[in-house]
Amino acid sequence: MLDPRRSRLVPDVDFEKDGKQTGFIRLFHSVHSSAYGFIPIPVVVIRNGAGPTALFVSGNHGDEYEGQIALCNLARTLDPAQITGRVILLPMANFPAGMAGRRTSPIDDGNLNRSFPGDPDGTVTQQIAYFIESTLLPMADLVCDLHSGGSSLMYVPCALMKRPANPKRFDKMKAMLEAFASPLAYITVGGSGTGEDHTLSGGAERLGIPALGTELGGSGTLTPAGLKIAERGLRNLLVHAGILPPSERIAGEAPTRFVNVSGPDHFVYASETGVFEPLVELGDTVQAGQPAARIFTPETPWAPPAVVSFQHAGLVMCKRVPGRTVRGDCLFHLGSD
Amino acid sequence: MLDPRRSRLVPDVDFEKDGKQTGFIRLFHSVHSSAYGFIPIPVVVIRNGAGPTALFVSGNHGDEYEGQIALCNLARTLDPAQITGRVILLPMANFPAGMAGRRTSPIDDGNLNRSFPGDPDGTVTQQIAYFIESTLLPMADLVCDLHSGGSSLMYVPCALMKRPANPKRFDKMKAMLEAFASPLAYITVGGSGTGEDHTLSGGAERLGIPALGTELGGSGTLTPAGLKIAERGLRNLLVHAGILPPSERIAGEAPTRFVNVSGPDHFVYASETGVFEPLVELGDTVQAGQPAARIFTPETPWAPPAVVSFQHAGLVMCKRVPGRTVRGDCLFHLGSD
Amino acid sequence: MLDPRRSRLVPDVDFEKDGKQTGFIRLFHSVHSSAYGFIPIPVVVIRNGAGPTALFVSGNHGDEYEGQIALCNLARTLDPAQITGRVILLPMANFPAGMAGRRTSPIDDGNLNRSFPGDPDGTVTQQIAYFIESTLLPMADLVCDLHSGGSSLMYVPCALMKRPANPKRFDKMKAMLEAFASPLAYITVGGSGTGEDHTLSGGAERLGIPALGTELGGSGTLTPAGLKIAERGLRNLLVHAGILPPSERIAGEAPTRFVNVSGPDHFVYASETGVFEPLVELGDTVQAGQPAARIFTPETPWAPPAVVSFQHAGLVMCKRVPGRTVRGDCLFHLGSD
Amino acid sequence: MLDPRRSRLVPDVDFEKDGKQTGFIRLFHSVHSSAYGFIPIPVVVIRNGAGPTALFVSGNHGDEYEGQIALCNLARTLDPAQITGRVILLPMANFPAGMAGRRTSPIDDGNLNRSFPGDPDGTVTQQIAYFIESTLLPMADLVCDLHSGGSSLMYVPCALMKRPANPKRFDKMKAMLEAFASPLAYITVGGSGTGEDHTLSGGAERLGIPALGTELGGSGTLTPAGLKIAERGLRNLLVHAGILPPSERIAGEAPTRFVNVSGPDHFVYASETGVFEPLVELGDTVQAGQPAARIFTPETPWAPPAVVSFQHAGLVMCKRVPGRTVRGDCLFHLGSD
Amino acid sequence: MLDPRRSRLVPDVDFEKDGKQTGFIRLFHSVHSSAYGFIPIPVVVIRNGAGPTALFVSGNHGDEYEGQIALCNLARTLDPAQITGRVILLPMANFPAGMAGRRTSPIDDGNLNRSFPGDPDGTVTQQIAYFIESTLLPMADLVCDLHSGGSSLMYVPCALMKRPANPKRFDKMKAMLEAFASPLAYITVGGSGTGEDHTLSGGAERLGIPALGTELGGSGTLTPAGLKIAERGLRNLLVHAGILPPSERIAGEAPTRFVNVSGPDHFVYASETGVFEPLVELGDTVQAGQPAARIFTPETPWAPPAVVSFQHAGLVMCKRVPGRTVRGDCLFHLGSD
Amino acid sequence: MLDPRRSRLVPDVDFEKDGKQTGFIRLFHSVHSSAYGFIPIPVVVIRNGAGPTALFVSGNHGDEYEGQIALCNLARTLDPAQITGRVILLPMANFPAGMAGRRTSPIDDGNLNRSFPGDPDGTVTQQIAYFIESTLLPMADLVCDLHSGGSSLMYVPCALMKRPANPKRFDKMKAMLEAFASPLAYITVGGSGTGEDHTLSGGAERLGIPALGTELGGSGTLTPAGLKIAERGLRNLLVHAGILPPSERIAGEAPTRFVNVSGPDHFVYASETGVFEPLVELGDTVQAGQPAARIFTPETPWAPPAVVSFQHAGLVMCKRVPGRTVRGDCLFHLGSD
Repeated sequence: MLDPRRSRLVPDVDFEKDGKQTGFIRLFHSVHSSAYGFIPIPVVVIRNGAGPTALFVSGNHGDEYEGQIALCNLARTLDPAQITGRVILLPMANFPAGMAGRRTSPIDDGNLNRSFPGDPDGTVTQQIAYFIESTLLPMADLVCDLHSGGSSLMYVPCALMKRPANPKRFDKMKAMLEAFASPLAYITVGGSGTGEDHTLSGGAERLGIPALGTELGGSGTLTPAGLKIAERGLRNLLVHAGILPPSERIAGEAPTRFVNVSGPDHFVYASETGVFEPLVELGDTVQAGQPAARIFTPETPWAPPAVVSFQHAGLVMCKRVPGRTVRGDCLFHLGSD
Repeated sequence: MLDPRRSRLVPDVDFEKDGKQTGFIRLFHSVHSSAYGFIPIPVVVIRNGAGPTALFVSGNHGDEYEGQIALCNLARTLDPAQITGRVILLPMANFPAGMAGRRTSPIDDGNLNRSFPGDPDGTVTQQIAYFIESTLLPMADLVCDLHSGGSSLMYVPCALMKRPANPKRFDKMKAMLEAFASPLAYITVGGSGTGEDHTLSGGAERLGIPALGTELGGSGTLTPAGLKIAERGLRNLLVHAGILPPSERIAGEAPTRFVNVSGPDHFVYASETGVFEPLVELGDTVQAGQPAARIFTPETPWAPPAVVSFQHAGLVMCKRVPGRTVRGDCLFHLGSD
Repeated sequence: MLDPRRSRLVPDVDFEKDGKQTGFIRLFHSVHSSAYGFIPIPVVVIRNGAGPTALFVSGNHGDEYEGQIALCNLARTLDPAQITGRVILLPMANFPAGMAGRRTSPIDDGNLNRSFPGDPDGTVTQQIAYFIESTLLPMADLVCDLHSGGSSLMYVPCALMKRPANPKRFDKMKAMLEAFASPLAYITVGGSGTGEDHTLSGGAERLGIPALGTELGGSGTLTPAGLKIAERGLRNLLVHAGILPPSERIAGEAPTRFVNVSGPDHFVYASETGVFEPLVELGDTVQAGQPAARIFTPETPWAPPAVVSFQHAGLVMCKRVPGRTVRGDCLFHLGSD
Repeated sequence: MLDPRRSRLVPDVDFEKDGKQTGFIRLFHSVHSSAYGFIPIPVVVIRNGAGPTALFVSGNHGDEYEGQIALCNLARTLDPAQITGRVILLPMANFPAGMAGRRTSPIDDGNLNRSFPGDPDGTVTQQIAYFIESTLLPMADLVCDLHSGGSSLMYVPCALMKRPANPKRFDKMKAMLEAFASPLAYITVGGSGTGEDHTLSGGAERLGIPALGTELGGSGTLTPAGLKIAERGLRNLLVHAGILPPSERIAGEAPTRFVNVSGPDHFVYASETGVFEPLVELGDTVQAGQPAARIFTPETPWAPPAVVSFQHAGLVMCKRVPGRTVRGDCLFHLGSD
Repeated sequence: MLDPRRSRLVPDVDFEKDGKQTGFIRLFHSVHSSAYGFIPIPVVVIRNGAGPTALFVSGNHGDEYEGQIALCNLARTLDPAQITGRVILLPMANFPAGMAGRRTSPIDDGNLNRSFPGDPDGTVTQQIAYFIESTLLPMADLVCDLHSGGSSLMYVPCALMKRPANPKRFDKMKAMLEAFASPLAYITVGGSGTGEDHTLSGGAERLGIPALGTELGGSGTLTPAGLKIAERGLRNLLVHAGILPPSERIAGEAPTRFVNVSGPDHFVYASETGVFEPLVELGDTVQAGQPAARIFTPETPWAPPAVVSFQHAGLVMCKRVPGRTVRGDCLFHLGSD
Repeated sequence: MLDPRRSRLVPDVDFEKDGKQTGFIRLFHSVHSSAYGFIPIPVVVIRNGAGPTALFVSGNHGDEYEGQIALCNLARTLDPAQITGRVILLPMANFPAGMAGRRTSPIDDGNLNRSFPGDPDGTVTQQIAYFIESTLLPMADLVCDLHSGGSSLMYVPCALMKRPANPKRFDKMKAMLEAFASPLAYITVGGSGTGEDHTLSGGAERLGIPALGTELGGSGTLTPAGLKIAERGLRNLLVHAGILPPSERIAGEAPTRFVNVSGPDHFVYASETGVFEPLVELGDTVQAGQPAARIFTPETPWAPPAVVSFQHAGLVMCKRVPGRTVRGDCLFHLGSD
């Protein structure tokens, strides 16, 4: 089913060797400043004999930092002797975006999480996606792709999964989500048609591999509370998978609250271009019809602001960060219990 | 003392006319796409007979929004009949920066608040500075320049003044700062040598006009708590100046806490390039020697992070927002009681 | 025959509902400044019961304005009660190009009219093309795509059609072209191999839908005479299709003059790089061998200019606008009776 | 009065030598791609013994072509034996702008005609202005700076002069303007405050040298009628100055119509951002209050257009070309008899 | 096997006509500045009756000049009467890159030599690749694609071939390589997986046409010794093919030294980002483990440099030029006898 | 005489303290991504009691590397106990240019060596120049500013001085030049008018401090032979100044050859735009009238090349590197004994 062409990326680690290996996945990129150079995507493999494989990814978007730091800490501190099986860490999956601190790659404007299943002969970002989907995902028994809201959005820190059609797969992933032990978690409807099959978790679904995600904060900053949730969650996932012993499990402070994130009418979009004033805060519970935001035009300061409202009741999980906004920007989205 | 050359900017409002006037300060800018066009800097003048003049400025940095919205609201709601004297509103002082949602102007990369006293024949940003210092400031009896932390910094919302050498001027400005009624306020040392005489408040000081500033949030977002502080503070300044009657005064929730912001050793800077993890939060009280931040390099995820520490004890008033950071970036600064 | 993959664009109007609806086709585009935002492509649907559907498109190239204004006027003034059937208006088909006043999209440099049939998973411009070809065109019984010469060319205002192989289709389209009642109209040879199957009218031909085009002026400006031709022509097309009653028909000032536009040897190209002096005017009749233009090099002002000549006799229908030119630029093209 | 610092530009022609010399003014510019290179500004000197000096300049704005071609033709065809005195031709004064076909320089965004008197140590554009004002202007007995409307404006082709305070100077320049024999000519009010002293003619005024200008078309294209006016006018100026014999004079088709261009209320500016529809044509006579243009927003096609009107009666001499416009763009200006 | 879609490029020379023809391959490219223009890729065809066809290509990378000059000289000096058969010269295959003096195209960032087999409906660079592979290669009996190291690499001037699987093809190409008579030549292993099938010689291999390459210097400069090798080699290839008579053969100064270039462990890459100091010179023979380079960080000048070493013994054939380097850049590669 | 305004740059080292200190000169730069950050220009101070001060500078142009590496090595290896007096190292004077590997700063396009005496309130590059001239130069008894040819030029490695008017100063500097012990050295004529007073050595001349320069290679690469000359020369200068003991002196391989570099007619410039073929090599001795280069146009490969010749006899000291060249580029310059 997968494209039979092979990826041109060359890892300089051996995924089948025991111990801790650090190195780079080499993406050869022949450009004016470097005719034969490669883009060095960092990778860490920690292996101890046979057993399940966990693949942890961050830096899928380059301006989301909690996952990057959590994987750096894991790379330094996880001892092969502690584990059974294998942990693969890809802390800066879209390396050029990560170095730039941007959602997308400065080389090709590629959004890695809209580029799956990728293309071995495509742009740099498409080549990375193809390598992950064709080479890394097939090695994995579970995947966690660590996101935050990025530069434009801020989230109540949480974990998430996409609702699969298959109930067995649902149960398996729901159990993983419970194991992650974040204070809040949400389950999204599949197939919203806006690019989800082009995500890394879309790739995992194509291959039948259980996959979790996170939204650990945002604003292009590192949120310490989100980092703590990530570090606990990853460790608990390793316990859940049998890679770490049960003694390594860290309990959450409270049971996870689960919510659903439904379709587009639970999102609020800017109706006009201007400066956005939020009228509610992250974590608020809102009612249908409640004003969500005002949009001002300080270039014509005497003009009255536009008002946009929520179409549904729900929990405010996500909020736009930048004040300056254009028509069509997402300002909020809701979750519902 | 001022440059005798006159500004080339042409306002289409009459600052001496009673009533509410809205319009633009025209900055003629002859470019490829518009040979004879002007940049329309919005201005609002509200006047009712003789009396003091308040000049309120926002959008000095284009990505700081609390002031812009506060002035939009004032422009719509302040009735000339309510006031005695004159209120001049300049909600988007660096108009090109404001339209772009950037600290600096996309036309000339100019930071307006490092461009005073400006130049009537200089770049667009220098021309704006010159107009403000040569035309608007001389009309004013008090000035408030509304800032926030911008895209790269987040502040505990507060008001501020630069400590003047003259004790009378100090008392006058301190009284204004008290009238503003923000929960937190700080007084900076003058003459730090890093550009302060190039600010709008440096211009006010040259002309002997009392001037306040604010830092109402930051992150390039609009912080509702900061907006509320701004709106109360501006109204209270108008009362303090005698432009609005005392009945319009809005009490603060608590007495203002005053702190000092001293020299460069109360600032923490990135020692390396990488991803910044804050180890303290805004509003924390820290001790000398306490670790402030770790800097990771996910491009080499196995490398240990660098640690930077506070040199002094104090209150954490300001924090860097973007995770990706380069050597020399300011990560925090402190205030001390 | 069409790609079975569905478009990811989501209209917020219901094409099957009676009355006048205005809204946007949402093209979700996850970028640094807006992770979940959409590009809002404006659309107007005016429907009154069963009947034929006319699809009118402008802003296919963003710097061609007669069509954009004509469709704005139609959007405001056409009353659903007047019509039988349906009119779909897409006034700014390549929305990012239109906002920029550019032929091509500033997001991906895409020329929408060289992007058909498009790709639901491609660039922004390819996604727009795909939506039009896969969703809008199948609804239409006739299509009119309103062009002008854009920033680089100026046309004698005219309507046009591409000559189809099928004589029935030819007759149908010729009748439409006559109904349009422009002073000048031309018929192009199909299959010139330089991208015509990638145009919107190429898409219409793939689907067997009769399609007209226009060239209403150019220079990146709005030509009032071209606007008038467009407004009359669109109204007459609605009459021709039976959507408006015959009483709404507006007669042309004179019978339409029809000419043919043949292959590449009726085009004149710059042989050198320099400044272009036209030696003939739009609307002139020229002879084979007649000098068409001189190309000067003011960087070496003493050098004699190069001369380029017409290879054929004909009517000068189209002229390059910008003086500075590079080898290979089209300077003129001719029509022949 | 002039800056005593000398220009760093080095001409490779000798302005005091008889005959026709062609060469370059070398502006040394040490950049990454060329550490010791120069920018080669073309210059032609045609001299025959003692006598007056005419300085003809074009390419002051790089996208205005009639003057560039007229000076190329003069450079090739003017025979030193024909003349008495000296003719200096500077066909591409802002050479980098001319090569780019842009109003302003791609090197420093400099508008040469807003850069006088220039700076010998400033940007590239300021250095060119300084050389012209400090080296070329002092050699001249009369100056003609050939402009057109550029990419953003279209003019009724005409010649012009700035009204000097000194009546003797007025008479001298008016006689030159009559000699130029263009169908239309206008006299502008001096000192409008929007940059006029920074023009080349401002420089001529500082030095007391009579100076004419032209507006020979625009749209970034070459208008043959404007070129013809330029070629006749330049030749007639040489006759007027006594450099060419009276027999070389070319009569105009009709007496010149003279109009005045007064202050800013004879200009019409865009009140909003959108697409501009002109409601009058170049050459029309309009009345005060007459609608001048409508501004549409095809991004919200159902919104009604804004209308802007003329404040005065007059002749429409100048019209904006690009359809897409932003608030503050000049749409028209008028002349009055 | 080839894509049945035809190329949209149109040559204005007739490849079947005798004599010397010069002209352009027209690549129509509809952009903002030129709606109907073409990119003029220069081509020269020299033909004299039936006989073999040699295709010589340069400017595949725009910053490699020895081949471009060699083909210019051949275009001017090769007389059709001298030859039997046909010589096709494509001196600036990636024309936009050549005009910019860049490895890759400024239009689409395309590296032509990573774009084969190309796409008739793809980017400009992909369209060029497609035309070469679908139209020019099938006419050829032998191909020589003239490269140098480009801006980032410097080579010991040499010729080269890719080792084909088929021994007959190997013998044929080895004979051509010997005929070329360069002092040094190398044979690369096929299928290294890093893009070789996307090269022009990969295209030749797909079509079974014998193909040579060269590396004639580099640094983005023209190396006279490399130019001499190219001119001799091309002439000798024409003799070898029977297009020129044996009397035209030019003997090499010494027998060609043949080396192999093996896989990635014969390449040395930058382990860190900084300034690169080479510790060996081009042409040196090195030992396994010998230090190859030091990488300094003058931004932290007190830090010790990193050292990278050769993994194998061999001849230093290729060296990076730019001092500033990033992790992953190729610093050297080796050949082995 | 110097501008009385003080520099805003703040060093974090104490120039008066004994021992070796490493740190940064902080240039505060308030930009969108970092409101309160500084640009960290590295500096090393090595001091041992009273005595003379040597100031060594590199990275004045960011793409010249021999000096940068020589100063890194000196920073690590020079022991304060070895010296008498003080050595100040500024290895990356134009830090932003150095990090970019560019001649000029990516922030303001500033060429530091054309920016002296600088401006404390100017652009980033002007502020650096001002700090060096107002703060560092006055501390120095001798200065060496280490240059190479940069990306566009290649030099025979050499040292140099600008001939001062004062014969005492000449003798002092000549002695330094001899001490430097490079194989080749040259003396330039002062006051060539093309920017020399804007160089660092112009600044030293203004202050009466003896100053040497170097040209150690070029091409944007590091030339090992040039590095060796630099390291020996710097050490010998320290001996010459009495900072290191005579025992540390390193003898040159041969006596220095001294040549003069005279005015512009010893330079050869490109007369046309195209690809540059050098006809002589670095180190060649040429005759007046000898062809220096040919300039080809592979975009019109059949056109004959232009030829440019030397106007004087001399030694070829400097050669342009990039093949693609534009009219006005310097191709060669000569020295004469």
